[in-house]
Amino acid sequence: MNIFESHESTVRSYCRSFPVTFDRAEGSLMYGVDKRAYIDFFSGAGALNYGHNHPYLVEALTSYIAHSGVVHSLDLYTRAKERFLEQFVQTILIPHGMDYRLMFPGPTGANAVEAAMKLARKVTWRTNIAAFTGGFHGMTLGALAATANADKRAGAGVELGNIIRLPYDGFLGVDTDSIDVISALLETPGSGYDKPAAIIIETVQCEGGLHVAQSTFLQSIEALCHRLECLLIVDDIQAGCGRTGSFFSFSESGIQPDIICLSKSLSGLGLPLSMVLIRPEIDRWKPGEHNGTFRGHNYAFVTAAAALEFWRDNTFATQIMANASFLRSRLKEIQTANPTTISEVRGRGMVQGLVCRSASHGAAISKAAFEAGLIVETCGPQDEVVKLLPPLTIDHAVLDDGLSILSSAVCGIAKNERAA
Amino acid sequence: MNIFESHESTVRSYCRSFPVTFDRAEGSLMYGVDKRAYIDFFSGAGALNYGHNHPYLVEALTSYIAHSGVVHSLDLYTRAKERFLEQFVQTILIPHGMDYRLMFPGPTGANAVEAAMKLARKVTWRTNIAAFTGGFHGMTLGALAATANADKRAGAGVELGNIIRLPYDGFLGVDTDSIDVISALLETPGSGYDKPAAIIIETVQCEGGLHVAQSTFLQSIEALCHRLECLLIVDDIQAGCGRTGSFFSFSESGIQPDIICLSKSLSGLGLPLSMVLIRPEIDRWKPGEHNGTFRGHNYAFVTAAAALEFWRDNTFATQIMANASFLRSRLKEIQTANPTTISEVRGRGMVQGLVCRSASHGAAISKAAFEAGLIVETCGPQDEVVKLLPPLTIDHAVLDDGLSILSSAVCGIAKNERAA
Amino acid sequence: MNIFESHESTVRSYCRSFPVTFDRAEGSLMYGVDKRAYIDFFSGAGALNYGHNHPYLVEALTSYIAHSGVVHSLDLYTRAKERFLEQFVQTILIPHGMDYRLMFPGPTGANAVEAAMKLARKVTWRTNIAAFTGGFHGMTLGALAATANADKRAGAGVELGNIIRLPYDGFLGVDTDSIDVISALLETPGSGYDKPAAIIIETVQCEGGLHVAQSTFLQSIEALCHRLECLLIVDDIQAGCGRTGSFFSFSESGIQPDIICLSKSLSGLGLPLSMVLIRPEIDRWKPGEHNGTFRGHNYAFVTAAAALEFWRDNTFATQIMANASFLRSRLKEIQTANPTTISEVRGRGMVQGLVCRSASHGAAISKAAFEAGLIVETCGPQDEVVKLLPPLTIDHAVLDDGLSILSSAVCGIAKNERAA
Amino acid sequence: MNIFESHESTVRSYCRSFPVTFDRAEGSLMYGVDKRAYIDFFSGAGALNYGHNHPYLVEALTSYIAHSGVVHSLDLYTRAKERFLEQFVQTILIPHGMDYRLMFPGPTGANAVEAAMKLARKVTWRTNIAAFTGGFHGMTLGALAATANADKRAGAGVELGNIIRLPYDGFLGVDTDSIDVISALLETPGSGYDKPAAIIIETVQCEGGLHVAQSTFLQSIEALCHRLECLLIVDDIQAGCGRTGSFFSFSESGIQPDIICLSKSLSGLGLPLSMVLIRPEIDRWKPGEHNGTFRGHNYAFVTAAAALEFWRDNTFATQIMANASFLRSRLKEIQTANPTTISEVRGRGMVQGLVCRSASHGAAISKAAFEAGLIVETCGPQDEVVKLLPPLTIDHAVLDDGLSILSSAVCGIAKNERAA
Repeated sequence: MNIFESHESTVRSYCRSFPVTFDRAEGSLMYGVDKRAYIDFFSGAGALNYGHNHPYLVEALTSYIAHSGVVHSLDLYTRAKERFLEQFVQTILIPHGMDYRLMFPGPTGANAVEAAMKLARKVTWRTNIAAFTGGFHGMTLGALAATANADKRAGAGVELGNIIRLPYDGFLGVDTDSIDVISALLETPGSGYDKPAAIIIETVQCEGGLHVAQSTFLQSIEALCHRLECLLIVDDIQAGCGRTGSFFSFSESGIQPDIICLSKSLSGLGLPLSMVLIRPEIDRWKPGEHNGTFRGHNYAFVTAAAALEFWRDNTFATQIMANASFLRSRLKEIQTANPTTISEVRGRGMVQGLVCRSASHGAAISKAAFEAGLIVETCGPQDEVVKLLPPLTIDHAVLDDGLSILSSAVCGIAKNERAA
Repeated sequence: MNIFESHESTVRSYCRSFPVTFDRAEGSLMYGVDKRAYIDFFSGAGALNYGHNHPYLVEALTSYIAHSGVVHSLDLYTRAKERFLEQFVQTILIPHGMDYRLMFPGPTGANAVEAAMKLARKVTWRTNIAAFTGGFHGMTLGALAATANADKRAGAGVELGNIIRLPYDGFLGVDTDSIDVISALLETPGSGYDKPAAIIIETVQCEGGLHVAQSTFLQSIEALCHRLECLLIVDDIQAGCGRTGSFFSFSESGIQPDIICLSKSLSGLGLPLSMVLIRPEIDRWKPGEHNGTFRGHNYAFVTAAAALEFWRDNTFATQIMANASFLRSRLKEIQTANPTTISEVRGRGMVQGLVCRSASHGAAISKAAFEAGLIVETCGPQDEVVKLLPPLTIDHAVLDDGLSILSSAVCGIAKNERAA
Repeated sequence: MNIFESHESTVRSYCRSFPVTFDRAEGSLMYGVDKRAYIDFFSGAGALNYGHNHPYLVEALTSYIAHSGVVHSLDLYTRAKERFLEQFVQTILIPHGMDYRLMFPGPTGANAVEAAMKLARKVTWRTNIAAFTGGFHGMTLGALAATANADKRAGAGVELGNIIRLPYDGFLGVDTDSIDVISALLETPGSGYDKPAAIIIETVQCEGGLHVAQSTFLQSIEALCHRLECLLIVDDIQAGCGRTGSFFSFSESGIQPDIICLSKSLSGLGLPLSMVLIRPEIDRWKPGEHNGTFRGHNYAFVTAAAALEFWRDNTFATQIMANASFLRSRLKEIQTANPTTISEVRGRGMVQGLVCRSASHGAAISKAAFEAGLIVETCGPQDEVVKLLPPLTIDHAVLDDGLSILSSAVCGIAKNERAA
Repeated sequence: MNIFESHESTVRSYCRSFPVTFDRAEGSLMYGVDKRAYIDFFSGAGALNYGHNHPYLVEALTSYIAHSGVVHSLDLYTRAKERFLEQFVQTILIPHGMDYRLMFPGPTGANAVEAAMKLARKVTWRTNIAAFTGGFHGMTLGALAATANADKRAGAGVELGNIIRLPYDGFLGVDTDSIDVISALLETPGSGYDKPAAIIIETVQCEGGLHVAQSTFLQSIEALCHRLECLLIVDDIQAGCGRTGSFFSFSESGIQPDIICLSKSLSGLGLPLSMVLIRPEIDRWKPGEHNGTFRGHNYAFVTAAAALEFWRDNTFATQIMANASFLRSRLKEIQTANPTTISEVRGRGMVQGLVCRSASHGAAISKAAFEAGLIVETCGPQDEVVKLLPPLTIDHAVLDDGLSILSSAVCGIAKNERAA
């Protein structure tokens, strides 16, 4: 029994699927203490969109450290934070024609969601937040209430209230448009649905099973928010920062959320950082009304500012879309070759997955792939979706290798099944 | 208007009191972009007990970066985490005769509190957590419910339930022992107080006004928890990691909490990290029941492991107590010299403060001190306490200088008042 | 200003629509202090199914009073209660082949609903109750949470939690079957809908706008409850006691609820009484776990026992159905004659209504009818439905007269509108 | 097994202590079906202050029935209600110099409490109601939250929130004044106690163990309410209507509550009726915002109006105080004679009790007394208090007889104990 098993809480999870002690990592590869390399199609659950230890980001951080830059600063002004603000405004907001205030609510995505929900309630004087079937927003009590997963919810130990649950795009099948049902429930007088303070949505449900909201759905939700005079919050924590091809996952839909939550790959290097973008009109926080010790994580500001270099022009976006196209075609091939095992390819951009007909196959494929040197996770309420989340910066050859390993793993499972 | 004022949310707070853009920091000093030095008696609200950029910690981190060590790993096993676990067990747990499981719930103190509260509810099948008047436990919805501050609570926008509020040690004045009232409320049949899942307590209320729980009070609370069959949670996020003289602030009382929350100075360098210590018998988490993207912040594991070197023997503790003794005597002198302005010296170890008779004097003293080159904050429900939280590693001369600045600031306020 | 206006709370409501002081009442007629007679199509909102002061019931009560029968008895055994129990078992339960325990939770319908919800939560260890759009279940905090009406909900002043709101039969229009949406929300893993303790339903939403649940819908809900292992509660407070033609409104659907709530016309004479029928297997109350001062209202037991005489054979049911058929045909005629004013005839049995195209017409019709000597109310979220709830015992001639008054009122409104 | 045991829910309670089927009742006597007489020291838990079937009240009701008076009227104006309003204003409000609006929220005390709590929340825009240790306010979800009894609370099956629990007068022992603790908790900035919408109090905790609030305590609570700008609600449901000697139990303290809840003996005859008195300035209900089917229970209005005759002059109050004085002296004698069994005589006016040293003795005394022909109940969290609640109209001889039976019962228990 190693020290993890003897001394770490039973709550540990991913290490159970990938029972190796990792030491080093570069680009799309992680290395165990035994120096074995693993292709990483997991990317820190979306926190490593630029791969491991990207030299440009490491260099920026190393310089900062050498300069004895301030590490921790609560919400004091620092040069590192100033640079990040300048870069973000210049590189992201202005080119997108967006006008938002930036809030650093603490370094986790859950903190961003909690802050967004608080602000929506404060601004609207309403208490309910509408969230979606399959949604995932974090583990702290406010964010957990908005999270759909039954096991996670059960951990709360108290009633998770003040949430209205709406059917996500496609949830009700092909014959029923979710937006019609949502509208009926929220807009019919006397329905019993109290008007929400906000609707919070992920454009792709990366934890909930890779369900994708179509642009038309997002537009309908935005219009509904206007009619209900409630806020639209996009939780772009996993789908943002380039995962779907553009910096914000909702850009292609043209919607203009009132609040946007970012985290995960925001710092670029995988350092804890989160940010809430707020339309200036609703930035009604009182000073210090939401605070936290690690709001001023300057290492993360430094690498986050450096990571924005990827977004200076369209090169990176173009590269992502090319990789995404290749990824999808290869997954389709795997599906076609294994129709009794894989029912569907789901997802968007560089977050795509294979939906297994049998929930247990998800774990089996992940396990087989890992044994062959590929880290790939599952998602969905029953872990029935094999989720691919490669670094956006992945070399084509490594992506290809990883997909070959995955293909073999799926075929192996399919063959075993036919034999059984 | 700088970019902070134009683009950062109005929620920003400390920067309003200390309106300088900081660039570098070393030991007990922070430097503005104009190179002016400030003595730091704030220490990142307790996240920088070992001072800024301690060379030993920076060196450990720099080596790790040079090695391309894994930065982000969710809860995968990494060499960096392994080393931290080994060090923590060897340096802290075994010498204290403590047997606990370690949980990494996400990098913030609030996350540690949320996890602790969840676990207590899960283990006991009860829903209420008892927390104290003046307590501060974080800003996410679960932790916020346990937090006493009215302004912070008001930010929630929803009812903060499932909390029982108990009077802290000394809260009811000298004639009424809080423990008697607590016992009556929680132990009298038919009182209407449902039995709590846990009692959560800070041994020093560092945000709530520097109230200190005596050892006898802590022992009585522990005994009460046993009688009620509820858990005892010590939130040692601000008072722990050496702030009061020993690694855990409760060691001198001899109590054995069921759950201990650590964060802030745990990483040593000010990097986001938190940890929950759990008695093995109640480590009943299901795998992944509480999770989070930044549980595996390896930079923080590296520096946290290095910081444990301070605790190899008693040298550091002895040094802290010497500093604390000097700090207290100087504060007492200031009080004695300004009896109409300062009513009391409060606190313990290296977290002590001056209680102002007029709430507005707290901010005035902080402001005057900052103009003279000292960063010192206020706390308490009306910011009436000037709170001193110098690095534990501070040089005697710097501590002395800082206190001289503070003394002048207080005298200046007192003089102005007499003139008025 | 009369004493009502000077001294009764502004909360008073029906008296604003029917501003007469009533003195006497017999059968389907109410008499003002000025001796003017009004035909009563309101029947105490369903509490007077057998009309006012039915001689048989009055005689039973008068005898009991003359005997000095116990009036108030908490839940002590009394001869009056014993007789009611015997009659109810013999006349209702045995002929219907039903096996239920009887609980008297207090004299109001809300109390019956609160008790039903408590028991469902207790038995299943779940906290949420699923209720329907348009549902009405009472004004106390538990029952109010299940009630859909926005104005009533707003009165709570606190968050109304622990309720899941489902679309009622027909709520989503003709193209979407509510049961499909309900099933998707409650039965899809990871939807975020926690399994409910019970589903509570009215077979006709007498307050919510006279929407009717089809038998197939009720059967589907019952099947769903079985799959979810949750309880089925029928709130038969307004639709029961014969209103739809049989003693229980759900009899024709063949479902077997786990819990049935009765009140309103249960006592026959309009005296406060309510009852909860509980399947024996789930009668897991501890003695006194739900109590109340007025559980033993013996006058109501006496008249309730007498009222069961109506159900000795099928005569009464046959008469109700004949009246209902006549009522519907006359309402259809009114609709046909006023297509621009009335959009639809809704309801079932002896609770039917005219749906106005303009919400304001509901009140106008009620007002005009009252001026012509007919008491008829409105319902629906915007009071857009003119609701007819005549005594079940009404003479054909009086029913005909009342409908003529109503017809004139509708025509008058329609004519005014055309003129406008 | 009789029909109660076979068909009534297991929730039934009092009938388990007094397993007789009662048939008739007059004055202070109840008669079983076997014609055996029992002296009633229980009085319908306070609903029968004027005894059973008082001829004056029965006569008023009989006349009304003979006149075919309206029985059920929702909140329509009726002659019966008008007379009650007139009488109440003339006989009670004007002589007391009180200016209140009258609200009829439904016929139960719980409904009055729910309405009072709703209104307080609505008027103050705050959510919490402060209630006391040992308080009892009803079984519906809002009222139950304010109720202290652990068994009753456990029946809810959901979290009972939005209540602050305060120590009642005397709860903290002789050395600690509850008001000091309450003031510290509610008035210290940063205590974590959110300001309440109202404080709800019983002047005597008739269910909670016969604890009595001194006039000075009530006055302090009133002053505190003014300072907190919250409402003062007196729940006078059990202690009002003459039980303590005056119509309102708080008259002697001189406080002026914002809201007063009455029920139980309000109708005089034991018929379901409740009423909320509201200071005109806070009567901000919207029409129909709180409603209910049985608000217009005219039989109860008729008997309630008749019962007010008792309060035309001081004769009745004088008689009550004489009886109360006799009652207390006899109970003191019993205590003196049985010091090892009875620890204390508690209560006020005509609600007094013997506190047993052993909780089990309460039930034993009640049982022995019943066997000897006396109905007397227990109260307190462990049923340790034998509670005497005789009709206020009881003849001296019957009171004396009942007390003799009680004395024998206590002595018998005491003797058994000494023998054991």
